[in-house]
Order: sequence, then structure tokens, then C-alpha cells
Amino acid sequence: MSTQSITTLGSLNEECGIFGVWGVPDAAHLTFYGLHALQHRGQEGAGIVANDGGRLWQERGLGLLSVAFADPNKFTHLTGKAAIGHVRYATAGSGGIRNIQPFMVDFADDQVALAHNGNLTNAKSLRQQLENEGAIFQSSSDTEVLLHLIRRSKKATFIEQLKEALNQVHGGFAFLLMTPDAIYAALDPHGFRPFVIGQMPNGAYLAASESAALRAVNAKFVRDVKPGELITINDAGLTIDHYTTQTHLDIDSMEYIYFARPDSDICGVNVHQARKRMGQHLAYEAPAAADIVVAVPNSSSSATLGYAEAAGLPQEMGLIKNQYIARTFIEPTQQRREQAVRMKLSVVPAVLKGQRVVLVDDSIVRGTTSKYIIRMLKEAGATEVHVRIASPAFKYPSFYGVDMQTSDELMAAHLSVAEMCQEIGADSLAFLSTAGLIAAIDLPHEGSGSGLTTAYFDGHYPSPIYDYYPELASEAEQKIVTFEPELTAN
Amino acid sequence: MSTQSITTLGSLNEECGIFGVWGVPDAAHLTFYGLHALQHRGQEGAGIVANDGGRLWQERGLGLLSVAFADPNKFTHLTGKAAIGHVRYATAGSGGIRNIQPFMVDFADDQVALAHNGNLTNAKSLRQQLENEGAIFQSSSDTEVLLHLIRRSKKATFIEQLKEALNQVHGGFAFLLMTPDAIYAALDPHGFRPFVIGQMPNGAYLAASESAALRAVNAKFVRDVKPGELITINDAGLTIDHYTTQTHLDIDSMEYIYFARPDSDICGVNVHQARKRMGQHLAYEAPAAADIVVAVPNSSSSATLGYAEAAGLPQEMGLIKNQYIARTFIEPTQQRREQAVRMKLSVVPAVLKGQRVVLVDDSIVRGTTSKYIIRMLKEAGATEVHVRIASPAFKYPSFYGVDMQTSDELMAAHLSVAEMCQEIGADSLAFLSTAGLIAAIDLPHEGSGSGLTTAYFDGHYPSPIYDYYPELASEAEQKIVTFEPELTAN
Amino acid sequence: MSTQSITTLGSLNEECGIFGVWGVPDAAHLTFYGLHALQHRGQEGAGIVANDGGRLWQERGLGLLSVAFADPNKFTHLTGKAAIGHVRYATAGSGGIRNIQPFMVDFADDQVALAHNGNLTNAKSLRQQLENEGAIFQSSSDTEVLLHLIRRSKKATFIEQLKEALNQVHGGFAFLLMTPDAIYAALDPHGFRPFVIGQMPNGAYLAASESAALRAVNAKFVRDVKPGELITINDAGLTIDHYTTQTHLDIDSMEYIYFARPDSDICGVNVHQARKRMGQHLAYEAPAAADIVVAVPNSSSSATLGYAEAAGLPQEMGLIKNQYIARTFIEPTQQRREQAVRMKLSVVPAVLKGQRVVLVDDSIVRGTTSKYIIRMLKEAGATEVHVRIASPAFKYPSFYGVDMQTSDELMAAHLSVAEMCQEIGADSLAFLSTAGLIAAIDLPHEGSGSGLTTAYFDGHYPSPIYDYYPELASEAEQKIVTFEPELTAN
Amino acid sequence: MSTQSITTLGSLNEECGIFGVWGVPDAAHLTFYGLHALQHRGQEGAGIVANDGGRLWQERGLGLLSVAFADPNKFTHLTGKAAIGHVRYATAGSGGIRNIQPFMVDFADDQVALAHNGNLTNAKSLRQQLENEGAIFQSSSDTEVLLHLIRRSKKATFIEQLKEALNQVHGGFAFLLMTPDAIYAALDPHGFRPFVIGQMPNGAYLAASESAALRAVNAKFVRDVKPGELITINDAGLTIDHYTTQTHLDIDSMEYIYFARPDSDICGVNVHQARKRMGQHLAYEAPAAADIVVAVPNSSSSATLGYAEAAGLPQEMGLIKNQYIARTFIEPTQQRREQAVRMKLSVVPAVLKGQRVVLVDDSIVRGTTSKYIIRMLKEAGATEVHVRIASPAFKYPSFYGVDMQTSDELMAAHLSVAEMCQEIGADSLAFLSTAGLIAAIDLPHEGSGSGLTTAYFDGHYPSPIYDYYPELASEAEQKIVTFEPELTAN
Repeated sequence: MSTQSITTLGSLNEECGIFGVWGVPDAAHLTFYGLHALQHRGQEGAGIVANDGGRLWQERGLGLLSVAFADPNKFTHLTGKAAIGHVRYATAGSGGIRNIQPFMVDFADDQVALAHNGNLTNAKSLRQQLENEGAIFQSSSDTEVLLHLIRRSKKATFIEQLKEALNQVHGGFAFLLMTPDAIYAALDPHGFRPFVIGQMPNGAYLAASESAALRAVNAKFVRDVKPGELITINDAGLTIDHYTTQTHLDIDSMEYIYFARPDSDICGVNVHQARKRMGQHLAYEAPAAADIVVAVPNSSSSATLGYAEAAGLPQEMGLIKNQYIARTFIEPTQQRREQAVRMKLSVVPAVLKGQRVVLVDDSIVRGTTSKYIIRMLKEAGATEVHVRIASPAFKYPSFYGVDMQTSDELMAAHLSVAEMCQEIGADSLAFLSTAGLIAAIDLPHEGSGSGLTTAYFDGHYPSPIYDYYPELASEAEQKIVTFEPELTAN
Repeated sequence: MSTQSITTLGSLNEECGIFGVWGVPDAAHLTFYGLHALQHRGQEGAGIVANDGGRLWQERGLGLLSVAFADPNKFTHLTGKAAIGHVRYATAGSGGIRNIQPFMVDFADDQVALAHNGNLTNAKSLRQQLENEGAIFQSSSDTEVLLHLIRRSKKATFIEQLKEALNQVHGGFAFLLMTPDAIYAALDPHGFRPFVIGQMPNGAYLAASESAALRAVNAKFVRDVKPGELITINDAGLTIDHYTTQTHLDIDSMEYIYFARPDSDICGVNVHQARKRMGQHLAYEAPAAADIVVAVPNSSSSATLGYAEAAGLPQEMGLIKNQYIARTFIEPTQQRREQAVRMKLSVVPAVLKGQRVVLVDDSIVRGTTSKYIIRMLKEAGATEVHVRIASPAFKYPSFYGVDMQTSDELMAAHLSVAEMCQEIGADSLAFLSTAGLIAAIDLPHEGSGSGLTTAYFDGHYPSPIYDYYPELASEAEQKIVTFEPELTAN
Repeated sequence: MSTQSITTLGSLNEECGIFGVWGVPDAAHLTFYGLHALQHRGQEGAGIVANDGGRLWQERGLGLLSVAFADPNKFTHLTGKAAIGHVRYATAGSGGIRNIQPFMVDFADDQVALAHNGNLTNAKSLRQQLENEGAIFQSSSDTEVLLHLIRRSKKATFIEQLKEALNQVHGGFAFLLMTPDAIYAALDPHGFRPFVIGQMPNGAYLAASESAALRAVNAKFVRDVKPGELITINDAGLTIDHYTTQTHLDIDSMEYIYFARPDSDICGVNVHQARKRMGQHLAYEAPAAADIVVAVPNSSSSATLGYAEAAGLPQEMGLIKNQYIARTFIEPTQQRREQAVRMKLSVVPAVLKGQRVVLVDDSIVRGTTSKYIIRMLKEAGATEVHVRIASPAFKYPSFYGVDMQTSDELMAAHLSVAEMCQEIGADSLAFLSTAGLIAAIDLPHEGSGSGLTTAYFDGHYPSPIYDYYPELASEAEQKIVTFEPELTAN
Repeated sequence: MSTQSITTLGSLNEECGIFGVWGVPDAAHLTFYGLHALQHRGQEGAGIVANDGGRLWQERGLGLLSVAFADPNKFTHLTGKAAIGHVRYATAGSGGIRNIQPFMVDFADDQVALAHNGNLTNAKSLRQQLENEGAIFQSSSDTEVLLHLIRRSKKATFIEQLKEALNQVHGGFAFLLMTPDAIYAALDPHGFRPFVIGQMPNGAYLAASESAALRAVNAKFVRDVKPGELITINDAGLTIDHYTTQTHLDIDSMEYIYFARPDSDICGVNVHQARKRMGQHLAYEAPAAADIVVAVPNSSSSATLGYAEAAGLPQEMGLIKNQYIARTFIEPTQQRREQAVRMKLSVVPAVLKGQRVVLVDDSIVRGTTSKYIIRMLKEAGATEVHVRIASPAFKYPSFYGVDMQTSDELMAAHLSVAEMCQEIGADSLAFLSTAGLIAAIDLPHEGSGSGLTTAYFDGHYPSPIYDYYPELASEAEQKIVTFEPELTAN
């Protein structure tokens, strides 16, 4: 999708990136660099909690890391050998600084910090129940329920309390927690979100949302965190345990299509190569009589490479992305949105003039950006524009950690492909098939199914969706959606 | 005391001012003006919670009101007819913005905001107990215990829950709470802190820490809140109730001596006039053979007026206070402290030369500022400096809402008056007697005792001090301190 | 005058304070402290230029010193043993940072920094003439003409160029200049503005607008700079020279009445004592049948002391000034101006009730503040309010360094005393006579005349006013104003 | 070159972009959008001067446009139908805000604003001469000499004064000036810098550094500004004139190689296509036995496309650029520079493993970045790395508007290609020939020579370099550099 940075244009948003390390000098700065490599997963806020000899200290800020931590004094207290950090995507007005993670709570006898990537599907009802019992929440974030569940557990040790709590929450989650004594990493039973373990040259272990963050701090990849695992990192090194054995791999396919960095590997599959194969499959499924193939930069570059190769057509630089992003002062009227697209993308008429163009994009959400781009290409002299989308059409919302919890604004939920083609002004339009997507990702997977969540495209949800069910039912009355039953808890 | 603004010099600090109003247009701005009149009670942070049609919105900031609310956008959401606000004194490093009041908590079904002036003596043990039951605190402030106690009450209505909670906390408190439906004002059973009710020209009721804040917003004084009362202000007007009937008036005498504004009236006594009478009593008790009487501006101006009048000596402007306060970049070494005093106060040699001076101050804490001032007066040509303090000597800490919870730094706790006189370099030194203080305040009081807390001077505490007892006992081993028993709860 | 801090209320404003020192370690910080003592002379901007081994470095900022230099990094480059600084009063919108002094210009072969207190009466025509010759000004400030005049001089040395330039400008000026080699201090031929020389304990010399700034940095007073002098301060110490011998002392009487700090001495007269004598003379000239005397704090405190003493009436604290100043968000409508006064001053009803009050103020400009204050006193219970102004009525503008260059807004220029009394709602109103003022200041002066500029009151200007003459003539057609001829230049 | 954003790594820097428009509503916002499209030409500061009915108003700020104009209040005064703007590259510590353009000077009778892209070679001697005549400069920027030359001209009209001044300055310049009446655009006699004229849909004319800025505001391209031209844009439309007829086209070849946006056309040549042809010529001149071609993103993408096509090798995404730039807190030690490269670029091991790689970059300056990149590629599994640079080796500095005025840090000035290859750790290294560069740009040019400045590569300067000659001579003693004589002025 081409609109990642223009929030007013209706893009998809990942809900966060997390990073933690135990056992290096100045762990907070290392965490800063690791988070920087995960900045694409959240630009609305960032925080770091450092652990200096058993005492936790928190710093948080709004905006990009470079803004949130612009004041170097923020690092004054972030000393010590362990730290966890978080970059956050947040919808406008959702509460400001108090919702920036990692959350930190002080008890008379302990401290706990928590960072979360994902979305809990039963948080609302858990929160209601906790509040009825007298709990007071400090944020409007669902993440906080985990802290209350831990705190109310009657188990004897922190790790037992944490296991009990992890078995009470449902949905998508990669959690990083830190106490004075250890960092804990836990992944949901479906493995919806990516989560990896790495190791520094000095032997220290770390955990991060993507393997690209490991390389950014010169760490080597150790293994993916597996569904249902609870991993402890402390002075004793790495201890792998699990809080449940009832698991089933269902990685969110959007990580491969759109969210993750091309240089990350998820469950053994390199994201760039997966995208390139999506482009190749798309070329086989939907060829076009054209002269050149043009990418919507930068997110569809990999798929475009694959499409051009498989189609035997030259790839050309018909669109250029401005590397500087400036906010516009302008009202988001339709005319002004076009100005925003123009500030972000520009055409190269010398390349486009008189050409029949295949325009490869990674996705279509609302369709408005596509419409403006196609108009710009044609004004620059392209004679035909054939749009090829390297993923299936988005028709259904998701609830496992992506900010698309309604289908209201999804163009494909309301229009046929032919209608969409007409709406965006293309000469032809085609999407990759779901089967093509699964084949392109080619997950080395032993269990049942594809190992992927493809509910966006086919409405088949790998788990019950609890508190979100009423919304989905009402808006998808005539749609056929299905749910797998809950994995039996151990 | 002359050092109110120089925190590094060891002054006494009031722990806050509160203000709330129900029933005016733009209640938040009115609250801003009311808090501005209470700025002397806390300069480290400020917050306002406004109630717009049943929805609460919170804004807070560090520093003076004019800094904390420098951004006018902060008022964008602070709309509606009701608001409560708080100005806060906070010790350095005490947790930043999350400890700025009013606190606000969102429940699935309700919202509550809370502002507190005072100090709870059993908060630490209550907090420990609540945390053991699973409660998570969002601040390091003791005030928050009240919210947890309310929330955990099994009573049916909010007001009943609140009453139950108020009966569980001990110490000094003037609480202002706001829910979507009402503002609640509650004063502790001893009435340690000042708290008044006023009425706007349009009939709306308000509550504030001091009567000066009423006049600042053009409201008229209605009555003092009385010990044990719980007052509700809502669309129905003012409803006076109580949560306990076991009460005994023990107003903190420091309000008259030092904290409150001279234009405020507390329990029917004007503060300026009380201070003037303290100066008069002091002149009777401790006359001096001198030529002129000089005030340490501004806080001892009233007492100086009284002293000069009673002594029949001319008052002169031998010391001037710089109205601009700038932070110093300097380390708080002794030499530098002297520079800080010099930036704040300056002498008028033309007035002082060859004169025998009575220097009137309202109090002595550490004595360092007095020492610098006396040296400056003598360098400017004063031949003798007779220091007269318009309050008794501070020997014991207080736990009911003033930031002086240890006697370690109290000069009078460790030295005799003669030793103090020598230490500060005065030609003579005298304090007002406790009896003189009580006579000067002249509280129109019907119950037993003086109606005043004078524990600072005589070590007689009007209630048990719970969690603070261990500290006091250890540091005052040889001292004779006494405690009144707890008022029997109803 | 009681309105110094509320610019919207029409107060008088001094145009700057200056400070410079040569020969101390860390001269910039010392200059900061010196300027802090001069903050009352200008609150709109501040700057410091430091001289580190012959290299000048400039830092400037808007607002109070504590704001302009809030960033400690500003001192990173302000190293070295010499510095000059400036605090500035500026009318709104007058050009921002580029008009903040000290100005600094870099030449290929030299550097010059310049700070100015005063106002040049022929700057406009000089600037026009310089621009016609090709000069380009970097500021809209008249001060800059001096730099161009110096630069265009054909004289051989800097000091000769400077003398030539000083003989070309007219009006009021205390100039401080710094080159890599020295600091230069020059006062106009009439000595309109105060300017003093001091010495540090280590022997280093300094220059400042007021003697209070000397004491603030622990320096001792050496002498006043005299009209027509040009003083050099450098490694050789202090060198006193003059650029003209045609001089006549005409100190601006407003310095004694209003601007200068009470602890400053100007030409041998202590300001506080001069003000106290003004109050005494006022009591003799205009007694009142009253019970108490009340000051408008803080600026009329000295005069009030004198009035009460001479009248044999008790001084009382009927009005209190809030030590915290917060900007109001409000439009300056009449109703809102009243709110602004209410935020700044408050009454003490307990003191005022049933009393006949003498209200002493130092001046009346527009009269609006007086009106609000009198209304507040009466609402608080005062039965009569007799206003006594400890200076003559302001009828004429000034052009020598005070921001009152028009009489349009001067109440006394348009109304009789009786009309003014009615307008402000007083029971009686009286001003000090000009003769009383001169007698009260009691300047030890050997030349002709009083040694004071009293043009505000009597329209007699001690010099031609050049570029301002057209304005004055038009607005004062029927008024009798007179001008002394220019002092014959040497 | 791959290091555009990391200033500590030794990159080349363009000295500015300029934009101006006359005749549209809200010209300042249009200028903001135009400058945004030129942000790559300067990121250290930005300014806009707007012309509202004949009154000019200036706003400037440090940093990116989005930072410099973060405060929307900056646009409050920037009203009116005409504006000019500037984005600036500045070396650290070069004077702060006062050097940010457009400069603006106020005369009693006029206003002039000036923005400059380029570098004047005789500014230093002109400035010395002007200062000797008494001129005072407000900036340390050479640009300001033009204003003084205009102001000192004895010609009768502004345009004649401007022409006279333009004939006195030498070097590279595209100037935009604005007076109350018109905008003026002037290009140096060699046309060193790009400069284009466009037209808005409403007929208004504009001028900009690159044609990409025209498209960004929906304007159409009209023509390039030609060497020696002086163009007036005002209410009468566009008037083309010249200040000299002695011209010779010598466009800076670095604009095609590195600086300009790929979607800009300069003198009829599209930049992307020129770069692609450089890559093709490079493939012909220096083939390599390899498996894949990898670009250093983003600046060498066009050349890489050409190389891969001509070489018949697949292009692959072996390197990825992080779209988020964060400052590092770290000292620029060698180890830390490597961290900075790692934050900016990352490898895709899945793509590189076991591959023989052709790495295409647009240039080598210091060589340090190349070294780190090659190491990263090999660590990721590349078996061979053949570096191919799509421009000739940089051996000589330039003085016409690029920040590379010394050859001290140019690797190619000191080492042979074989030595460079060893130093950076490549398996082979080759540069494009100068002839190949000229052929690839393929300028449609009628005069003598190539129409390009290639002095960086061959030391042949198309004009005398005046004040810079001493530097060059000393550092290039053994080098053969040549200079064309000055074009004879008319």
C-alpha cells in the first residue's frame, strides 16, 4: 500500500514494535537503535524502561523516536544493563502520553514494565470484570489488563502469576515484560505477530518484533518465538518455557504483504523474497499487454521486481517518493488530499510519455490514493494504466493487531473488481488470489492449514473474536464469515 | 519566612491549593483565575479537570500556572459548566506529570476526578494493604488511596462509597472530587486545612482553599467548610452533609503565620490582621532599643506593621525584594546560596546607615537566610540588628499537610535561642510565645483547646500520626511529644 | 504607578537597562546577575555579548532573562573575561529578535557590540541620510545609526571614530560598546539617563544603568558617569575621557518617581528616600481627613511611608499585590481589564471596612487602573477614598528614553484635576507640585536649573527634539511648550 | 552517493533551492509546497518572504521546512499574492538564523528580499572593499554583497542598479529578488545552476530551482532561465531581459549525477534518464562477471536500472534504506560511524547469500561509507562485490555552488583506483569515464564544449575562481588545473 505515511488517507496501521535486551552496557541506547529499526511499526509514540541494578526507570514521548527522545536528558536515568522499549501506532486523540508504552507500575515491593504488540479480543470484558472488582486503570489501553490479572493472581511466584494471566487473555499478542530480575517474552497461541530472539556478540540475549532489528544492533538471529511460549531472559541467559501447549500457527499474512521490513525473516521466510514471489504469481495470474512496469514506491518495490521479471517487461521509475515528509496545513478535503499525494509522490513524464503502464501496488484500502496516482500517470502521458495488486482484495476486518477493525472504509468490501477498476480510473485491475498469496509466501509449516491468517480476504477467522463479534455481525450480515473454535486451554 | 521562592534554601512548603465550581459558563477559565489566586500554595504543577455535559477532560502541566497552561490549546477540551483544579507543591524528582492533580480515573461506567490539599497519615499502610489485594496505583501520591477505597466499597451509591472511604483515611485533608454529576468537598475531622464555600453572582457555588480565591473571581464568601463535612455542589445547588460527627477543630496555625494570603479570612479571622497582632504581641513580649523596624519582604510585612506600631518605632524600607525570579545556574554551595539571596533581596544603605535595626521575620527554619540578611544589613551600615520572629520557635515536624516531616533541618530543634542568635550573627533574638500566638490569632472558638494546631512549637499532636510515628519516635527520643487519641469514628 | 506589569493597561515603560564588566572570570554569568537586578527596566528581551580572548560571541532571546536564557547551552560560547548585556522594553510587533540588543557587527577586521539605554531624537533623519548614501540597516532600531556613523568616520582610531559619532547623535543615551580590546561607556550631554561605574573585589571595573546592579554582583560604587563622558574599561583599568565639554545636567525626573529601583542612588540621591520625601511633601501640600493611608503596591510604598509619617496617620495594608503574574487569555475589553487588575491586586476588606482611606499612588497615566482600584476599595467597605499622587500630573510626552512619545492617552493632558477626580470616582484627588517634586528630590547640583528634566509636567524641554517636533507641534497646538537651544558642540 | 542524510559521513551538499511566485492567492503556502519539493537541496534552514500589497514580511527557521514552519502562526503575516522562499544547506555553526535566507532589508523608502542558490567566487574581496567604504553586513553570508552593490549603485532605477550589481559578482548564482513591485530572477553567465520558469493554471508565473517543484504545485514548465538573463515577474506577466550577453553554458554536471531530483528536467534532459544512461555506459565500459546488480538506495537507483539492463543481469534488492532518520547521540568515532551507516542502510542476506554482486553507487567521496557497505554485504554472504561508480572519480574541488571547496577529503585526489579498491575492500572498482558521462547526459547544446562543468573530474575550470585561487594553488601544486578566461562583460 502506498499511503503508509499519510494518515489522513486511510492506510493500514500496525499496532507497534517491541524490543528488549538483558546483559549489555547502556542497554537503553541499544534499545533506542533497535526501536529505530522498528519505527515503521509505529510512529505516534515511543518509550523505554531501563533496569539499573534492579530499579526500573521509564521515559516516554509522543511522535517519532527522534522527537520523543530529542532531549538527551531523557537518557540520564536510563542506565543499566537491561531495557525494554516500544514504538506505538495510536489513533488520534487516544489519550496522549498515558497510553504510551512500556507501561510501568510501582508496587510497594516490586516493579513491572510491560510492552505489547497486538490486540486482545477479550480485553473489554476482562476490563469490565476487573473494574467491577475494584480495579482502577491508568490508561485506556487494553494492554493494561494483563498487569491487573498478574497482580490479582493468587499464585506464589511472578512467573506463575504471569502464566495464569496469559491464559486468560485472547487475541494477538507479543508481550515483553521486565521486572527487576528478568525480561519475559510471550507470544499468543496462534503466533499472530512476529517475534524473534537474538544474541549479541557478548552473549546477551534480546527479543524484538522483527529480525531486522537484530541486525541493526549487530546481533545474530537465534530463533523465532513460538506460539504459546514464555521465554525468560536474565543473568542465567535464556530459558524457554511455555504457558500453554494448545497452539496452532496462524501468522498474520499482512506482515508479509505490507508491514514487515523486506530485510526481515519471519518463520524462515524472507519478506522481500515473499513479496517478489507475490509479484511473480500475480504476473502469471494477471498478465497485461504493456510496455513498462512501474512500482508505487517504496512498499511495492519487491513485488514489482517479481512482476517485471516474470512478465518479461522492463521495470521503470515512473513514480518517485519524496523522502521528506511535511505535514500539510490543509483541511482534508478531496482537493487537498490530492495535494498531499502530490507532496509525497511525483511522476517522471519523460519515462511515462506514450507508454502502456503496469502499475504494481501492494494493496488497496479506500482506493482514493490509487485514483490520484492513476490520474497523475495519465496526465504525464501514460496511454494505459493496468493496476496489479500483489495481494488479494481486502474485504474483512482484522482483530489480531492491525488497525482495521471495520470494513466500512474497505473499497473491496463494497464494490466488485470491475466497479473498483472504474472508480479508480484504471484500464484494468487485478488482485493476487489467496491461493497465489499462500503459494508465494511458501511457509515451511508442518501443522494443519497454511499457517497464515488470511481472514482479511476470505473471512475465515482462526479463533473466536469475543468482544468484537457484535460489530462484525452487524456489518457483515450477508457475508459468510467463519470462526475456528478456541484452542483448548491446558 | 523570607525564603518562600528559593527552594534550595530550606523553606516550608504548603502542599497545595484547590478550587472548584459548578454552574458557570466556561468553568475552566474561572478555575484558572481561582487557582492563580492560590498560586502561593503550590508552584510545581497545576491541573484542571472540566466537566462538559457529563464528560470529564483533564489537562495538567509542570511549573507555574502560566507555564503549565501556556499553551492555549489546553483549554480546547476544557469546556463546560463545571471544573475542579489544583496547584501543587512537589519535592524534586517526585514523579513528574503523573503526580500532578487532579487525578482522573475512567471506568467503563463512570469517571472521577480528585484534588487534595493535605497529607494522609495512614496512606502508606492503606496503600500496602490495597496492593496486597491486587490494586495498581498510577501515581506515587498518597492521595490515590481514596480512589481505590471508593472503588472497592460495596456501598450502593457513590456518596455512600465516598463516606466510607473518608472514614478510613486519617490526617489532614481538604478533598475536592468531581463526577459527571456533582462536585464533592470534604474536610478532615480536625479541620487542619482551610476550605471555604463561595457563591457567584449567578448563584453558582464554588469551593476553594482560601477566601482570597473567591474574591479573585468576584464571588462572595458563604461559609467555611467545617470539620467532618461532606458538601455536594450540583445542579440542585449546595447540599451540606457530614461523613462523621466526631470532630474537633485544630486548624494548622502555620496558615495564619505563613501560608495563607493576608487578604484571606480563615474561620472568621483575617490573616493580615492576625499577623499584625502577632507583631504587636511580639513587641510587648520582646521590645528592643532600636531606631527603625525593617521587614523581611514580603511575608513579614503585616507583622512588622504591628511591631512598629506597638513599639512606637518608625517602619523603614531597609530591604527590597526583587519582583523577578530567575533560576540560578549555580550549584547550591554555601557561597552560591548567598548569591541566590542577593538576587532575591537587596539592602538600602541610605536607610540603614548608622541605624539600630529591629528586623522582623515570620519564622526561622534553617537560619541560613537570616544569617545572610543580617550580614547584608551590617555591611550596609546598620550598627545593631535585633531579630524578632513573629511566631514561636519551630522544633517539631508536622504531618498534616506541610512539607516539614522531619526536624533534622530545624535550627530551633537543635540549638537554644542564645545559640541561634550567635549562629545568625544577630545582636539579639526573640520569638513570639505560643500563648502570644494563640492570643494574637484570637480564634472565635467554642470547643475545647485553642482550635489551633501548635505541634510545631510544643510537640502536642492533636491526633495519632500512624505511619509517621516510627520516624518521629527515633528522632525525638529525648523530646516530650504527646498525641491526642483518635476521635471516635461514628 | 501601579500597572508596571500589565502592559495592556497603559503604563509607562523604560527603554532598557545595560550592564558591562571587564576583567572577571566568567563575565557572562556576572552580567546575567547584573541584568537580573535591572530586569525592571525591560522585560521584552535580553542579550549578552561576551569577549573571549578578543573574539565576541552574541546570544539573545525574547522575554524575561529567565526565559531568554532558559537554555543553559546559551552560555556555552559566552566565555571569557568581559561581557556587556542589555534588557529591553519593546512595543509589540517591533521586529522580534533582530531588534534585541546588544547588536553585534562583524567586519573582516573587527567586531563591535553595542547596547543602548535611551532614545535618539535625530536618528530618523540620520538614518535617512545614511541610507541615501548606501547604508543597509539590519534592525528597525534607531540605535544602529551609531554603528554606521562609527564605520563611516574617516578618523584613524576607533575611539576617535566613536567620539565623532557621539557628537552627531542627539537625545538621551547611555551607550555601552565592546570591541575585542575594550568596553566603552558614554552618556549624553544632558545626562538624561542614570549610568554608574563600579568595581569588583578583584579590581575589575564595570558599568551599569543603576547602582542596585553593582550591589547585586557584590561590586562597590565608584562614581556616576557624567554628561559628555566617554569612559574606557580595559586591561589598563578605567580611563575617563569626554567626547564633548558642552554639557548640562538634566536627569529624567521619572527615574526618581517611577523607574529606578528604590535601592539605587542616582547622582547622590537615594531613590527610596527621594520617594519618601515626595510623599511627605504631598502630605504637606494636600492633607486629607482620613483614618488610614494605603499604598498601591509595590511602586508607591516609599511615598506612602512618607505620606503617612508626615500626616500622622497609620499606614495600612488595604491592597495586596499577587506576586505571580499570569497572562490572561482574554480580550482587552473594559470588563476584562478589570479582571486583569483583579488578578494583580486584591483588597483586604477587614482592613478597609468603615475606613476613610488615603490612597497613595506614584502616578496616573490613563486613569483606568485607578478607577478599578477605587471601586474595589469601596466594595470592600471603604467609606471615602482620597487619592494622592506623589508626582505632578503628566501632560506632555517625553523623547529621551521613556516610551511615552505622545500625550494622546495621558488623562491629565485632557482633563482638569476635578474632572479626573470625578472620572476615577475618588472623593478627592491631588498631585504633588513640580516645585514639591524638585524639593523632594533635592539634587546636590551646582549648575543652572534644577538638574532635572520635568518636561512631562511643565512642557519645558531641555533640548531641541528634532525629528519629533512635527508630532509634538500638531498635538499640542494650544499648549505652551518651550525648548532650550542645543548645547554648543565642541 | 549514498550518504546524503548523514552529514557526519562526508557527503556533498548542494547550497540551496529557491522558489518564487507572483499572482496567486496565498502565495506563501504555494511557496511552502514548492520548497518542499526542493527540500533535497537544503535541510538546514528555510525562509519565506511574502508580499502583501507592497509590504514584505519575512519568516525564517532552522531545520527542515516541517520544523522551520512547524508553528502555523508563522503564516499569519505571510499573506498576499507574491512570495519567494529558500531552503538552505549550511555547515554547522555557520551563524544560525541570521544567515537563513531570503534576506530582507528595510529602507526608509523601499524593501528588498533576496534568495540565492550558488556560490560567488569574488564575494570575499567585494565584501572587504564594501566594508572599507563603511558598509555593515548583517550576515556572514556572501550573498549579502549583492544588496550592498545594488544599494550603492548610482543608477536611477532598481532594475538598472540590479544589472550593475550582477555584472560585479562572479561565480555561480541563481538569484531571486522581490521588491514591493516585482520578483526578479537572474542566472549567472555560465548557467552553473538549474533555474526554470513555470506557469500556474491561473496564468501566474513562477521561478524555481528545479522543474519538479513546478509539478509539485500543479504548474506547467515554460522554459529554462538562460545564462545572463534577468527576468521580471510582476502584474504585467513575464518580461525576459538580460544583464549581459557574454555567456557560455557550463551547467554543473553534479546536478545530473547527484543533486537534482530524478523527475526534474534540466536544459531539456530528464535527470532520471540521464542517470540511467550513465549506468548503461558504465556497464559497457566496465562489465563484471556477477550474478546480481544491487543499488545503494536511493540515489543510485536510476543508474542501477541502466547498468542491469545493459549488462543483462538481474537487479536485486540487496540493500534497504531506513525511511526514518534519527540523529545519533554518538561521537563520530570510526566505530560509531559504522553504527550510523547501519541505522540508515540494511542488507537482505536472503538476497545476497552466495551471490557475486555488482554494487552500483553514484559517487565516492571519502570512501568510508563504501567500505562499511561492502563489509555488510560480505557478512551477509555475498561472495564477490564489484563496485561500479556511475560518475568519474572526484579529484578537484568546485566553487560554483557545491559544498566541496577542498580536495583534502576526496579519496580519488590522493589514491589510484587500485588503491581505492583495496581500501574499500571491493573485488573490483571502476568509474564512468568523463567522456561517458558527457555522452550519457547528451545535452542538446549548440555552443562550444560540452555545455557541462566537469572540473571535479578533469580540473578544467570554465572561469577564473578569484578569491579561491590561493587555496586551490596550494593544495594542487602538482596537479594540472586550467581556467577559462572571464567572459568579456558587455
